[in-house]
Amino acid sequence: MGNDTMNIAQLRARTPGCTESAYFDNAGSALPSEQVTRTVIDHLLLERRVGGYTAAAMAADRLEAVYSSVARLLNAAPDEIALVENATRAWDMAFYGIRFRPGDRILTSRSEYPSNALAFLHAKERHGVAVEPIPDDEHGQVCLESLAAMLADGGVRLVAVNHVPTYNGLVHPAAAIGELARRAGALYLLDACQSAGQLPLDVREIGCHMLSATGRKYLRAPRGTGFLYVSKDVVGELDPPLVDLRAATWTGPDTYELRPDARRFETWERNTAGLLGLGAAVDEALALGVDRIRDRVDLLAGRLRAHLAALGGVDVHDRGLVRSGIVTFTKKGWEAAELVTALRAAGVTVDSSFPSRARFDTRPDKPAAVVRASVHYFNTEAELDRLVNVVDGM
Amino acid sequence: MGNDTMNIAQLRARTPGCTESAYFDNAGSALPSEQVTRTVIDHLLLERRVGGYTAAAMAADRLEAVYSSVARLLNAAPDEIALVENATRAWDMAFYGIRFRPGDRILTSRSEYPSNALAFLHAKERHGVAVEPIPDDEHGQVCLESLAAMLADGGVRLVAVNHVPTYNGLVHPAAAIGELARRAGALYLLDACQSAGQLPLDVREIGCHMLSATGRKYLRAPRGTGFLYVSKDVVGELDPPLVDLRAATWTGPDTYELRPDARRFETWERNTAGLLGLGAAVDEALALGVDRIRDRVDLLAGRLRAHLAALGGVDVHDRGLVRSGIVTFTKKGWEAAELVTALRAAGVTVDSSFPSRARFDTRPDKPAAVVRASVHYFNTEAELDRLVNVVDGM
Repeated sequence: MGNDTMNIAQLRARTPGCTESAYFDNAGSALPSEQVTRTVIDHLLLERRVGGYTAAAMAADRLEAVYSSVARLLNAAPDEIALVENATRAWDMAFYGIRFRPGDRILTSRSEYPSNALAFLHAKERHGVAVEPIPDDEHGQVCLESLAAMLADGGVRLVAVNHVPTYNGLVHPAAAIGELARRAGALYLLDACQSAGQLPLDVREIGCHMLSATGRKYLRAPRGTGFLYVSKDVVGELDPPLVDLRAATWTGPDTYELRPDARRFETWERNTAGLLGLGAAVDEALALGVDRIRDRVDLLAGRLRAHLAALGGVDVHDRGLVRSGIVTFTKKGWEAAELVTALRAAGVTVDSSFPSRARFDTRPDKPAAVVRASVHYFNTEAELDRLVNVVDGM
Repeated sequence: MGNDTMNIAQLRARTPGCTESAYFDNAGSALPSEQVTRTVIDHLLLERRVGGYTAAAMAADRLEAVYSSVARLLNAAPDEIALVENATRAWDMAFYGIRFRPGDRILTSRSEYPSNALAFLHAKERHGVAVEPIPDDEHGQVCLESLAAMLADGGVRLVAVNHVPTYNGLVHPAAAIGELARRAGALYLLDACQSAGQLPLDVREIGCHMLSATGRKYLRAPRGTGFLYVSKDVVGELDPPLVDLRAATWTGPDTYELRPDARRFETWERNTAGLLGLGAAVDEALALGVDRIRDRVDLLAGRLRAHLAALGGVDVHDRGLVRSGIVTFTKKGWEAAELVTALRAAGVTVDSSFPSRARFDTRPDKPAAVVRASVHYFNTEAELDRLVNVVDGM
């Protein structure tokens, strides 16, 4: 098990935030390691000393290595990676890069993240596309039979689903979805915002054409960092929604040429210090091994669910045959916000999450708000107990 | 003069990079003050301790104050300000937010920044707009007579010019352009990337509907920060090119509502630490007074131009009746890159700039590359001498 193969005490010693609280908001913004923050600060101090451009030139090789690290994380090629400001921006550059035609169908999950849904509706208004949530199966995962049937009706331009929803512990069957999408000739965009860093991601195995992710969640990287994978197979047919001198070359008064690789989705100016921190965080995840991270997160999240479910009046809401590190629950007689406040007062950092905001999820019995405790590998059994005891004592 | 009203020794003592080199790359990425970098680092350390979301909640009032500071800098209202990742992104959100119709005319400057020009050509391809550079007057500034005549021909949807070009020391007559654009009923987007922090910017006086700027240049803020002003008068008619849950609210399965204010151009996730640093930098500029900054920059840049022009074989290329802190020059027998290298070796930080890349500037005699020495208020006469002596000795 993950427990036996990771030196948790050492990993915690290198995570200063571990002494502050029992930290279970890793699906919001995870605690970074000492080294990741140090990497960012060192570059900021270098910028202060020699100026931003000289500092970037001095870090050019290391910045280039961030592409290789992210590519390794995803089993992609470095030129299939764009480094951007956040997962939303990454996802946007892919989604808005598709040249939609009126009547194009977009299939998505019922658990889709509001920002993605808003972009679908935006495209509906602009281009007359159809937006169709795929039914859940009995476990709350994307129903593969329904997806196959919807694809068979034709006209599907894009399948865009989130891998791990933000408000529930389920994991969608990304690779099975990819196989169906590919067979139907549809583009496949996977939102891996919540899965990057906690679940192994192999874009060849998943079969997605595009994958977006953030740094600040399970990868433990700085805020203001994200990345986009775009397969060589489709990059040429995507038109970046915004173009600058990184994305294109101004070849004559009236002409320009887009870059042939994924950097056509980047902006020239960026937060170099943050991106170096992203590289450090990805390297730490790779050194630990994402398989081992997954095993330990799975172990801890499973135990937390079991402990919580054993308490009187507590409902654990996680669905899915496969589950992530996101644990969601409510307690009878308490608002989610009250539970969050009480837990925080007791030194347990959790957050609320709002199934009500996922408007494609039309279950009549879904809770409006839940407590979200998102565990990471650096959490301990003692921390799980602390959380459970507070909830039990209320 | 600026000399007498600023405590330059104190300002330099608070700018650690001043001891490293004579720094003249402020139009690239300026040296930040100790306090600005400290602000960013303090927030990163807070994030490491309590997590990114708790840290943001603790800094919420200070983050809100950044809007007020930027608004004060521009004489705008706080709800007319969007905080974004960089000037390109700020400009993009405004430009791509215009719902162009085929045949719409865009008037721009001959000195326009390549990224903006690329976006114009992108819009030309997508929407069939016409892109028309306005002729220069004899000083290299936007010719107001020509602009008036072009506007009189009708059909101008947008006047989009840069206030201060990146490759030449001239300043365009922003307010006079604004008066003509307004009278003709055209939208007016001012790219203030190089002017913010060195020239007073009053959006009411300038008469622009939209203004974009970066943090890292003359404002001395961190990389990865920028802002956009959008007038209340036009914000409702602009459709953000990318929409997320910051920009809009998902009101029902099939419906959404855009925010009514400038934050419809923002993304929810962002580099909080960097934005707090932007606020600190803007506050420093306001405390010093942008008028006084302008006076001192003007004094130093004027002296540098005079000293350089007095050297044998040196050509100063700055045009314009009004000039910025950007000083551009060449020396006979030397490539710009060689001059840059020699100056850097002598502890003088300058950069090259490439008039050749401004493809709307069709002067047959324009230099392909120049040395760009961009002075700021913290520079000294002794540093100017150092630069001039190196050039003279080559």
